[in-house]
Amino acid sequence: LPPPVAHAARRSLFNVLGTAVGAAPAPAIEAILGVALTERSGETVILPGRAEALDPYWAALAIGTAAHLDDFDDTHLATVIHPGAAALAAVLSLQPETGASGAQCLTAFALGCEVQLRIGNAISPSHYDRGWHITGTCGVFGAAVAAAVLMGQDAEGMERSLAHASFMMLGHREAFGTMTKPYHPGKAAVNGILAARLAASGLPGTADPLGPGGVLEVLASTVDWQELTGSWESDWELERNTFKPYPCGIVSHPLIDAAIEASGHIGDRSAVTEVEITCNPLVPELMGRRQPQDGLEARFSSYHAVAVGLLDAEAGLAQFTDDRATAQEVVRLRDRITLQPTSQCARDEASIRVGLAAADAISVHVPHARGSRERPLTESELLSKVERLVAPVLGDGAATGIREAVDALASAPDLRALLAALRPASAETEAV
Amino acid sequence: LPPPVAHAARRSLFNVLGTAVGAAPAPAIEAILGVALTERSGETVILPGRAEALDPYWAALAIGTAAHLDDFDDTHLATVIHPGAAALAAVLSLQPETGASGAQCLTAFALGCEVQLRIGNAISPSHYDRGWHITGTCGVFGAAVAAAVLMGQDAEGMERSLAHASFMMLGHREAFGTMTKPYHPGKAAVNGILAARLAASGLPGTADPLGPGGVLEVLASTVDWQELTGSWESDWELERNTFKPYPCGIVSHPLIDAAIEASGHIGDRSAVTEVEITCNPLVPELMGRRQPQDGLEARFSSYHAVAVGLLDAEAGLAQFTDDRATAQEVVRLRDRITLQPTSQCARDEASIRVGLAAADAISVHVPHARGSRERPLTESELLSKVERLVAPVLGDGAATGIREAVDALASAPDLRALLAALRPASAETEAV
Repeated sequence: LPPPVAHAARRSLFNVLGTAVGAAPAPAIEAILGVALTERSGETVILPGRAEALDPYWAALAIGTAAHLDDFDDTHLATVIHPGAAALAAVLSLQPETGASGAQCLTAFALGCEVQLRIGNAISPSHYDRGWHITGTCGVFGAAVAAAVLMGQDAEGMERSLAHASFMMLGHREAFGTMTKPYHPGKAAVNGILAARLAASGLPGTADPLGPGGVLEVLASTVDWQELTGSWESDWELERNTFKPYPCGIVSHPLIDAAIEASGHIGDRSAVTEVEITCNPLVPELMGRRQPQDGLEARFSSYHAVAVGLLDAEAGLAQFTDDRATAQEVVRLRDRITLQPTSQCARDEASIRVGLAAADAISVHVPHARGSRERPLTESELLSKVERLVAPVLGDGAATGIREAVDALASAPDLRALLAALRPASAETEAV
Repeated sequence: LPPPVAHAARRSLFNVLGTAVGAAPAPAIEAILGVALTERSGETVILPGRAEALDPYWAALAIGTAAHLDDFDDTHLATVIHPGAAALAAVLSLQPETGASGAQCLTAFALGCEVQLRIGNAISPSHYDRGWHITGTCGVFGAAVAAAVLMGQDAEGMERSLAHASFMMLGHREAFGTMTKPYHPGKAAVNGILAARLAASGLPGTADPLGPGGVLEVLASTVDWQELTGSWESDWELERNTFKPYPCGIVSHPLIDAAIEASGHIGDRSAVTEVEITCNPLVPELMGRRQPQDGLEARFSSYHAVAVGLLDAEAGLAQFTDDRATAQEVVRLRDRITLQPTSQCARDEASIRVGLAAADAISVHVPHARGSRERPLTESELLSKVERLVAPVLGDGAATGIREAVDALASAPDLRALLAALRPASAETEAV
C-alpha cells in the first residue's frame, strides 16, 4: 500500500472497529447470534440423488442449483420464471428441522412458486428488460414464503420474512450461458431461508415490503399492483407452469417435435438431402447458430435441435453433450438445414419438409409444440421426461417411485417416503 | 390448496425433483459440496466486543451489521458509500482460516474499501437514484476482493470472485430508517466470502464481470468506465473516506459544531429564549422534523441535533436514545429553534445565534464541519469518538489499545494482538 493509503486504511479500520464494538451488545446483533447459535445442529438435509447431507443453507444452494442446472426445469411462459427450483430447495432444506407433514410441504412448495409468479407478473416486462434474471430476483420471495409456511409463521411473520427477503435480490441476465446462471435459484433459496429465520427471531423489517415505494419500484419501472392481490381460491398462476420436454431453447421445441415425427418415416437417415423448416422469426433470432462448438452452445442452436431430432428421434441431455455437438453426422446434417422464418407461424408452431435421395419428401406440421400452454405434457410424457433424468442416477424405473411418493404427499406424515425414492442405490451401500 | 392447484403443484414438484436428481452428479454440484464439506470446521471467528465465536458466514453477517448498525461508521461523500463495514467483516471472518498476517489484513481491508469506492464512482449517481442502497450493492464486490486477497487468489481467481459476487447484489433504500438497513453490509460480506470461495473451488464465471454488457449496466443507466481503470500507485478514493463525529444525518453536523461551541459560552442553559440557525437548504429538506418521537427519528431531526448540542455540549449515541429524544427540556428547546435556510451557506457550513434572557446573544460561525473533507477529524478527535463507542463495552481507555494494535498491524504476524484489544473484560471471566 502507498503510505498515504496505509494511513487512510488504518484510520478507516480503527473507526469501523469502534462502531462494530459499540454495537456489539445491540438487540439486532443478539438476533443474529440467536439464529446462528441455535442452528449449528449440523448436516440434516439429504440431497436428492446424492448420499451426502448438508446443513440447510448449503443444502438449499446445492438443491436449487441442481434443479436449474440444465435449464430443463419448469417455465411460466408469461414471465419466463422457473419457479420450482427455489421453492423445492427451501422446502427440502427446512423440512427436517420443522418436521412438516407432506401436505404442509406441498402447500409450501405451491405458495413458494405462486408468490414468484404473481410478483413476476406485477413487474413484467420492465424488470426483465432492465437486465435482471427474474428467476433469481423473484426466487428469493418465493423461497422466503415457502420457508415461512414450513415454520408456521402468521401474517405478521410472513410480512417480516418478505421484508428481509426484499434486501437479498439477486441475478442478472449477463450470467446466461455461463455456469453462474443455475446458482441464481440456489442462492435465492439460501437467502429466502435466512430471511424467514431473521423474521422468526423477531427482527422487525420494512412495513408493507411489496407495496408502493418499496423494492418492486426499484426493480421495475412499471408495477402492476393488481397482480399482487388476486384470489387464492382459484386461478393460480402455478396452473400455467409448463415443463420443457427438451433441454434447449424453448422456441426450437416445435421444430424438434416435427423432426422427431418425420424421423419415424425415414428409412435411411443418411439419405437426407435437404431439410426445410418453416418457423416463427424468433427461431433464427434466438437460436440462429448453425454450427455450435460444444454442448452448451448446442442448446441455443435450432439447427442442432432439428438435426438430433432427425438422427436420434429424441432430444434429451444425451443430445446436448460436447461429443454429440461435434459428431460428424450431426455437423453434416446441420449444414443441409434451411430456416424459413415467417410471422404467419406462431411461436409454438413449425413445419418440416425432409428431402430424401431416393424417396418422396416427408412433410410434417406441428400446430402446437409439446409442453406448450395449448398442449401440456401428458402424465406419461412427464413421467418419461423425469425417468430419462433420474434413471442414470437412481436406476431404471426410479421415476415411478418418485411420482407415487409425490402423489401420496397429501397424506404423508413427513418426507421419508419421498426422500427414500430420491436416494441413489450407492448411498445405501455407503451407509452400511 | 384448491384441487387444480394441488394437481399443478404435484406436477411441478415431480418435474423439478427430476431435474434436481438428474444434475446431482454434475461438476457444479460437486463444487458446492466441496466448499460446504471442507468448511464445517466450526466456529473460529471471535466477534469484536463479544465473547461468542461463529463460523465465517455468520460472523461476517454479525460484524458487518454491527459496524453499520448506528449509521456512525465511515462515509465516502461523493458516492455516500460506507465502505468499512463489509471490508472489515470479510477480513475478520477469513483471517483465522487463512492465517493472514497483519499486513495482508490491512491490504485486504484497503482494497476491499477501494473497490467499492471506484465501482461506486463508476455507477453514480444513477445507481443510487434508482433506489439502490449503494453500500449494500458495492459492498459485495469489496468483500469479495478482500476475501480473495486473504485467500491469495491470482488475477484469474479475482476475476472469478468478482463474477460470482456480481450475482449477489443487495440492498435498496426503502430500508432506510429500519433495522433492515444495517444488514446490508453484513450480508454483502457473507455474499462476498461465498463468491471468493466458489471462485477458489474453480467454478468458472462470467468473463470480464465488471465490463460493458455486464452487471454495472444492470445497476445504473450510465456507467463511467474510466473510474475503474485508475492507478493503484497513488490517489486512492480511500484517502477521501470521512468519519462522522455524530451518529445522525450528516447535513446537521455543522449545526452541531456551532451549537457545541456556543454551549461553552452559556452560563444558564434554561435562559435560552430563542435560537436562530443559518444553514444550507438541505438541512430542512432532509432533517426538518421538529419533534421526533424516538431515538431513530431524532437522528433525522436537525432541531434535536442543535438542542442536544446546546444542552449536553455533545452529540454521541447517548444523545439519540428514546429517552433523550422525549426529555422535556429537549422538547422545549427544540420549539425555540428557527432554521433560516440559504443557498449562500455551503453544505458543511452553519451559523448559530443564541438569544439569552439576561445576557447578550451568542453568535458562532462554522465554516467547515468537523469530519468534512476540508476539516477531517484529527487523530485525537477520532480517538475520542472511538473511545466513546467502545468504553461501555470494553472498559475505559480501550480505544488506545485498539489504536496501537491497528498501528502495529503492518508488522504483526497475525491478528492476535488486535483481537485481544477487542475482547470484552467479561469474556475473559467466562472463558475461565
